[in-house]
Amino acid sequence: MPKLVDHQERRETIARALWRVVDQHGWTRATMREVAREAGVSLGHLQHYFTSRTGLLTFAMELAAEQTGDRVTRGLAALDQPPHPRDVLRLVLAEMLPLRPEARASSRMSAAYVLEALHDPALRKQAGLGLRDGRAMVERLIRQAITQGQIAPDRDPDIETDLIVALTGFTPLLELEVIEPHAALAAIDQHLDRLFAEAS
Amino acid sequence: MPKLVDHQERRETIARALWRVVDQHGWTRATMREVAREAGVSLGHLQHYFTSRTGLLTFAMELAAEQTGDRVTRGLAALDQPPHPRDVLRLVLAEMLPLRPEARASSRMSAAYVLEALHDPALRKQAGLGLRDGRAMVERLIRQAITQGQIAPDRDPDIETDLIVALTGFTPLLELEVIEPHAALAAIDQHLDRLFAEAS
Repeated sequence: MPKLVDHQERRETIARALWRVVDQHGWTRATMREVAREAGVSLGHLQHYFTSRTGLLTFAMELAAEQTGDRVTRGLAALDQPPHPRDVLRLVLAEMLPLRPEARASSRMSAAYVLEALHDPALRKQAGLGLRDGRAMVERLIRQAITQGQIAPDRDPDIETDLIVALTGFTPLLELEVIEPHAALAAIDQHLDRLFAEAS
Repeated sequence: MPKLVDHQERRETIARALWRVVDQHGWTRATMREVAREAGVSLGHLQHYFTSRTGLLTFAMELAAEQTGDRVTRGLAALDQPPHPRDVLRLVLAEMLPLRPEARASSRMSAAYVLEALHDPALRKQAGLGLRDGRAMVERLIRQAITQGQIAPDRDPDIETDLIVALTGFTPLLELEVIEPHAALAAIDQHLDRLFAEAS
C-alpha cells in the first residue's frame, strides 16, 4: 500500500518541521503557516494532511512519544536479559530527560504540549492519557519488583511510582543549565539505589 | 513618592493582565496587544510601562516569584518557632506546586516562562537565576539540617537538594489531573520522612 506509507511519511515530515519550529523559535511561533514554511510546503498542502492545528500537535506529540519509546526499546536490548527493573527505570528516566539532543527535542515538544493542553480540551485529554500511560508503565515495574522481592514489601507502590515519575522534574533545571546531566543521573541513581537496596 | 508607587502599581496591574491571558488562553495569545486589551489600556500606554515583551515577561515572572515568596513567608509564620527544616521544605514545595488557584497561576506563568526562555537569551539568564536562587535556598536548609543533626551526616547535600527540587516535577501531573493533590503531598511527606527519619 504505497499510498498509505507516503501519507504517513508526509505527516512525519510535517511533524518534524513543527518540532524544529518549536525547538528553534519557541511555541508562540508554531502556527500552521510557519510549520508549512519550515516543511517547504504550501499552507493548503499542509491542511490536506492536518485539517487542524490540534490534529497536527497531537500527531507530532505521538511521534515524539513513539521515538522516546524506540530509544527505550533499543536501550533495553543492550541490557542483561532479562533486565533488572532498576536498570529499566533508569533507562526510561534517562530517555525522558533532556540529556541528549534527540531527547531534548521530544522533551521540549512535550513541555510545550502540556502547557497548550491546559487551554484546549481535545489536547488536554490526549496529554492526560499519555502521562497516565507513562505512569502506569512505571507502576507495573514497581509492583513487579515488589512481588519479585527486588523492592521491600513495605514500600507503597503508588507513592514509589509517583516519586519516580516526579524525577522528570529535572527537565527545567537541565534545560536552563542549573544542574548538569551527570548530577541529575547521580540523583536518580541515589534514589533508585535506596528504593532497591533494602530488599537485595 | 506617590509617582513611583503609582508606576509600580500600574506595572503590577499590567503583569496581572498578562497572567490572566496566559492562564485563560495560553502562552501563544500573550502578545503585547492582547495584554493591553486585557488590562483595559491602549498598546501605547502599555509600552510606556514596558518597552519590550521581554521586559513585561520578566517583570510578571518576578511578581509571581514574589507572591510565592509571600505565601511561604505567611506559611512560615504559622509554624512552630523556630520552624523545623522539614516543615519549611514541605511548605516551599506545597507553595510551588499548582495545588491551589493562587499557586496555579504562578506555576503556569513559571512553566511558560521557562519554555519561552529557551529561545530568548535575556529571559534565559533571568529564568536560570531564579531557579538557581530557589535551588540555593533548598541547599542551605539541607546543609543546616545536616549540621544540626536533623538529617544523617552521610547524606550528600547536593544530591538531596536536587532530589527535593525535582519534586516540582509533580506540576504537569497535577495540572493534567493524572495525580491528585493529596497523592502529591503524600509522596512529598514520604520523601521528607525518609530524609529526616534516620537522624531523629
